[in-house]
Amino acid sequence: MRECHREIAKWLEAVGTSPAIDAVGNLRALYPGSDPTTPRLLIGSHLDTVPNAGAFDGVLGVVLAVTLLEALEGRTLPFGIEIVGFSEEEGVRFGVPFIGSRALAGTLDEGVLSRKDQEGVSVREAIEQFGLDSTKIPEASLRGEVLGYLEFHIEQGPVLESLDLPLAAVEAIAGQTRQQFVFAGKTNHAGTTPMNLRQDALAGAAEWIAIVEREARSVPGLVATVGAIEAKPGATNVIAGEVRASLDIRHASDEIRTKSAQTIAEGAQEIAERRGLEVKQATLLNQRAVAMDSFLLEQVDQAIRETRCKPHRMVSGAGHDAMILAQRVPTAMIFLRSPGGISHDPAETVLVEDVARALECGMHLLAQLASTLKSSGRTCLA
Amino acid sequence: MRECHREIAKWLEAVGTSPAIDAVGNLRALYPGSDPTTPRLLIGSHLDTVPNAGAFDGVLGVVLAVTLLEALEGRTLPFGIEIVGFSEEEGVRFGVPFIGSRALAGTLDEGVLSRKDQEGVSVREAIEQFGLDSTKIPEASLRGEVLGYLEFHIEQGPVLESLDLPLAAVEAIAGQTRQQFVFAGKTNHAGTTPMNLRQDALAGAAEWIAIVEREARSVPGLVATVGAIEAKPGATNVIAGEVRASLDIRHASDEIRTKSAQTIAEGAQEIAERRGLEVKQATLLNQRAVAMDSFLLEQVDQAIRETRCKPHRMVSGAGHDAMILAQRVPTAMIFLRSPGGISHDPAETVLVEDVARALECGMHLLAQLASTLKSSGRTCLA
Repeated sequence: MRECHREIAKWLEAVGTSPAIDAVGNLRALYPGSDPTTPRLLIGSHLDTVPNAGAFDGVLGVVLAVTLLEALEGRTLPFGIEIVGFSEEEGVRFGVPFIGSRALAGTLDEGVLSRKDQEGVSVREAIEQFGLDSTKIPEASLRGEVLGYLEFHIEQGPVLESLDLPLAAVEAIAGQTRQQFVFAGKTNHAGTTPMNLRQDALAGAAEWIAIVEREARSVPGLVATVGAIEAKPGATNVIAGEVRASLDIRHASDEIRTKSAQTIAEGAQEIAERRGLEVKQATLLNQRAVAMDSFLLEQVDQAIRETRCKPHRMVSGAGHDAMILAQRVPTAMIFLRSPGGISHDPAETVLVEDVARALECGMHLLAQLASTLKSSGRTCLA
Repeated sequence: MRECHREIAKWLEAVGTSPAIDAVGNLRALYPGSDPTTPRLLIGSHLDTVPNAGAFDGVLGVVLAVTLLEALEGRTLPFGIEIVGFSEEEGVRFGVPFIGSRALAGTLDEGVLSRKDQEGVSVREAIEQFGLDSTKIPEASLRGEVLGYLEFHIEQGPVLESLDLPLAAVEAIAGQTRQQFVFAGKTNHAGTTPMNLRQDALAGAAEWIAIVEREARSVPGLVATVGAIEAKPGATNVIAGEVRASLDIRHASDEIRTKSAQTIAEGAQEIAERRGLEVKQATLLNQRAVAMDSFLLEQVDQAIRETRCKPHRMVSGAGHDAMILAQRVPTAMIFLRSPGGISHDPAETVLVEDVARALECGMHLLAQLASTLKSSGRTCLA
């Protein structure tokens, strides 16, 4: 991370900014506006990534932000631009994501700071070990007038490729339910127990997985996934007495997501009753959807159009720093097509021409915002 | 096992026999017939069991055999009775079952004898360490005139309890297919991959498990079980890219079993093609069904009737020493009801009155066989 900071700081210095690392490890640099009283627009993404990752998740958004400053060639706008390279978005080390962006939103609480990694080092200790002063985290919180936050990010999914589109405006970040279902039946001999006398937990779970899929296919925009399953005792010649299965449901509408979770839970219950099983469910995560700012969304549509691309709005199924920033400031996100839908994998990539389009789109967006601020005399977009 | 041998040997000595341990560790004792030229009937079961087992699987059959001798109260029959307490029926230590009975059938080959346990000790070495002479194994093979083999065993399943019957004649031991199916799809982000762009290996496997169950429910006498499943990578928020699942199919008819295995494999193939998955299957076991002797079967029906119970014939879904002996001599098996269908569990049990009925049934059977031999002047039942 130090090397990464050093490298990007060099580029930021080259465009006349003075990059610094805030108390939570975010790289930040202000490109001032036309006068010291102008508000600022944040542009950024995260600099951390996952093990065995690709080269574009997060860092591409930061590099695009720096490149926008380069493309301004020293011109000033009626607003400043603060570049942010967020720390710890993925949550790999401490199991909790968005640590850097939470600090900006002012929501980084002691609960997160005391979380420990596998070696028993807390977030706070890790911050100190990095050479930062964790007592200054409150100072990382957003101050002054902020127009909004803009994030470029790879889609990490196959939608734009399937639509043959390079860019999309993110209209919302999906809400998410994570649950564990446990089906309990009766462990029995696979050879001596006739079909009509079985309480097969795995046969029940399989029927339920089909319900999960059917529900997701029948509700537009819903994704629902059973990704983890464990059958006990898990032997070829033994009927499974217990199955644990995960459930991940996401949708832009919390109401729809909650209703589908309910349908899926009722399905599990019906299966269990019919098969003489017991089913228990535990909710591990229930995260509300986050809408992007409607004014900025229109501006992004317009900027994509100006780039001679077809505007497209989509929901992000994955979480992003934009989700956290949206709690504080008007927020927008622009997705770049992910060839093959591949992400979190060394094969993750982007098309050079899509990056060029994203840059052009970003320049149009800056011009539009400058024009809006000038004509309205406003110092804020919201 | 030494303690077990010692205890049962005491009872066998009390009825006037001279028990001995053969070269493969079977406990054997001959109760002579009316004259030295009479053939003999084998009665027995196995003395080994599984970890965390109950008290009745195998050993009940040996104890019932000894009790039949006690009940004869010194009377001789026109045939001798050889009690056999088989060693290593379960296959726990070496992963290969029926070692004791294979020696009697003369089918214990070098492949089995060189099998090693987890500490690297071979079957042959274990036999020597027990104090036996493994070079004398061929002498354990059945010699002289043998009328047949009779085995009492707990059912290990819920059928007799569900029919409210204490005893049943086993008409066949089911043939068995064991396979592994591997469904390969595409690992993807559970949040960013829309339902219509997924190649979800677990959703495919779940659909296939439903086919396995449907096939088994629609074919009388068939049991088919998916007991083991593993999804990779197996994370809540990742679509499974690979699923491995086991398949266990059993039926008294090899033709029906083979046909159902074919139907299930075709189902997997159809699912895979429709979902853009690949499916591979490997056959780990393909064991033919073994029919019990038809004359002895009728005699067992008759003996059950004489015991004032309703005769019932059933297929054993589990393997037994009787399956091995049937390759050499006419063989019969009598099942005792298993309360709760429980087996290989400390809760495994039998009803005292069912054991009394089994004993009475055995005495009727001995009388019937004696009468048949006398009236026909035959020295063999087959």
